[in-house]
Amino acid sequence: MKNLYPNFSFLVTHQDGNARAGIIKCPHGTIKTPAFIFCGTKASVKGMFPDQLSNAGTQIILSNTYHLMLQPGAETIKKMGGLHKFMGWDGPLLTDSGGFQIFSLGHGSVSDEIKRRGRTDRKPTLVSITDDGAVFKSYIDGGDEYLTPEKSVEIQRKLGADFILALDECTPYHTSYEYTLISTSRSHRWEAKSFEEFLKHNDGAQSIYGIVQGGVYPELRKQSAHFVNGSPFFGIAIGGTLGSVKRQMYDIVGSTVSELDKSRPIHLLGIGGIGDILTNVEAGIDTFDCVSPTRIARHGAAFVYPSSRDNKDREHINLKRFQYKHDEDPIQPGCACCTCKHFSRAYLHHLIKSNEMLALQAITLHNVAFINSLMSSIRDAICSGVFDKLKDDWKYGRI
Amino acid sequence: MKNLYPNFSFLVTHQDGNARAGIIKCPHGTIKTPAFIFCGTKASVKGMFPDQLSNAGTQIILSNTYHLMLQPGAETIKKMGGLHKFMGWDGPLLTDSGGFQIFSLGHGSVSDEIKRRGRTDRKPTLVSITDDGAVFKSYIDGGDEYLTPEKSVEIQRKLGADFILALDECTPYHTSYEYTLISTSRSHRWEAKSFEEFLKHNDGAQSIYGIVQGGVYPELRKQSAHFVNGSPFFGIAIGGTLGSVKRQMYDIVGSTVSELDKSRPIHLLGIGGIGDILTNVEAGIDTFDCVSPTRIARHGAAFVYPSSRDNKDREHINLKRFQYKHDEDPIQPGCACCTCKHFSRAYLHHLIKSNEMLALQAITLHNVAFINSLMSSIRDAICSGVFDKLKDDWKYGRI
Repeated sequence: MKNLYPNFSFLVTHQDGNARAGIIKCPHGTIKTPAFIFCGTKASVKGMFPDQLSNAGTQIILSNTYHLMLQPGAETIKKMGGLHKFMGWDGPLLTDSGGFQIFSLGHGSVSDEIKRRGRTDRKPTLVSITDDGAVFKSYIDGGDEYLTPEKSVEIQRKLGADFILALDECTPYHTSYEYTLISTSRSHRWEAKSFEEFLKHNDGAQSIYGIVQGGVYPELRKQSAHFVNGSPFFGIAIGGTLGSVKRQMYDIVGSTVSELDKSRPIHLLGIGGIGDILTNVEAGIDTFDCVSPTRIARHGAAFVYPSSRDNKDREHINLKRFQYKHDEDPIQPGCACCTCKHFSRAYLHHLIKSNEMLALQAITLHNVAFINSLMSSIRDAICSGVFDKLKDDWKYGRI
Repeated sequence: MKNLYPNFSFLVTHQDGNARAGIIKCPHGTIKTPAFIFCGTKASVKGMFPDQLSNAGTQIILSNTYHLMLQPGAETIKKMGGLHKFMGWDGPLLTDSGGFQIFSLGHGSVSDEIKRRGRTDRKPTLVSITDDGAVFKSYIDGGDEYLTPEKSVEIQRKLGADFILALDECTPYHTSYEYTLISTSRSHRWEAKSFEEFLKHNDGAQSIYGIVQGGVYPELRKQSAHFVNGSPFFGIAIGGTLGSVKRQMYDIVGSTVSELDKSRPIHLLGIGGIGDILTNVEAGIDTFDCVSPTRIARHGAAFVYPSSRDNKDREHINLKRFQYKHDEDPIQPGCACCTCKHFSRAYLHHLIKSNEMLALQAITLHNVAFINSLMSSIRDAICSGVFDKLKDDWKYGRI
């Protein structure tokens, strides 16, 4: 059988329970897994130069098809030599299909709902869904735009990331079994069409991930897992709603992973808290992505070890708080990032209070470095067979 | 006579006409002159990490007493180890007296008027001026604040910059001869008081600049120059309004410099265009400061050589413009800065259109590097006795 992905490989090097460490190779480099993929939504990880990302230990970033197709347009990026060259990032790069944003923004902030947040105050932008694809309103000019499996893959080919995603439909967590059944089967058809379109132009520069849907219904998740297992996608992503409470998410991810072909890299879409990463690595997840580490940074929230937290229910401290006005410590004593090397909490607090953008940059840089360092310690623990201990150290505040 | 500034020195190493190259030494390093001082208004050059400033060739930055006294307060910065440590900048540092902002904002955006811009729509915040000092409204909480020569120097001592400025009164350019006469003589009294206060606590860590006032009146400028010459300030700054047209500025600066003690470094306050720098270096200015290179960057304006300009009356191109959407060139071909090494004009245009803050950071970084490179080429030209040629090359677009 012809190797569809001659320039890609995935090798599991160490296993510790279901947790695994491995290496993904792609045309723009090597990714040690478990790895975190940072979000450069509009072809920029907000506030970070590419060399700052690299220096903070970043292996791979992603950009969003939805945003880039509207501004500056896939054709422009292709003309400028592709996304890597355009954004000055020479490392591994992933693009999503555009589906998540269309459906999450489409239902009026369902992204918040899918991710279990309360906001539902945004205007729906989704016009219609058919078996062919979706029509939605552009947030740039209000005009009608459409996305089909074929168009998503075509756009992603023009963008030229190493890893691309098949188009799927994302449903909110309150969706009924009946709709989820219809939707999951539509996702499978769209994924099959995405794959066909991918094959037509496959020149070895890209690889494609299939996506497991099925909402909160174990039976549908299982069917979806088997569908993706049966299609020669390079990797497998777990998408859609994972329920309304963490326990449900862990159950859905755990049971889904147990059904998946273990020879392929497994990505969990949109999950990025520290506790969630640890639990899902334990279930067998290889890669994660989420806007959260960089987004919370722009609200003053900086990751710290459990022993440095000021609220045991939060994984960060918020530097906006007055208590940091005279705090000479770095965000996290012992952290090797540029922010912690040069800036005190007091200075960052001052920058926030003064509306200085350096605050956002500095905290973003710290959060990126912090998560990369977490992933590195996870890999080390798996390789040494002590992942359980690492997880407990975080859980019981021994770090 | 006792050396008031044992840790400071200024040496003119080369002279080319009135233009001169030299070296200022201070506790935090060495500054090759002519040099540009970038504005870190609120203890941050907007969008730039200290190491990015250094890597872009920055020798010295300044912060504003007016802003820092209100937020976070001089006492906080002192408690945090002084401004150098607070902002993570270990190089030479200057603070101003606070006077410029009090009077410029005080009269309702007179900063714009002093600098010959049209805006006068801001609310005046100055409450009163007496011979002791000024009372003004805080922009943080609306409360009354006061500044006297003694308080300005005390605050600047707490901040701990290498170079501090005596307090003066700044008048707008339409001010009458009569008022300017009164104001200049008040400035001299305030400067004398500033100097006395400085002497009381002089421990060798700081040096103080006197300021030449006198508005647009040659006779008053001359008197003011003689006043500052006669006081043992380490350096001399030329402040206040320099008229309403460039020719008038050049005349005022030229005639003022000709009156000044040439053994001291001469600073021109608030001037930062490329043409203005070249002309004023020719008149004998050693150092400049201005928000302009970093401020225009945040509006999409990037410095280029005359040969790369798209509008002969402007020293920059504006990357907001649609014409750059598909422009694969860096801002300035041949520029060695990080922005030009990695990003095209098309990418920067996209970042601006997408409201990505990386746009502001990247263009700021370019403008800082560009001005530092300009200053370096000016020093080289003076040292080689070819400053005239350099100035003409810029003027006639041969660069």
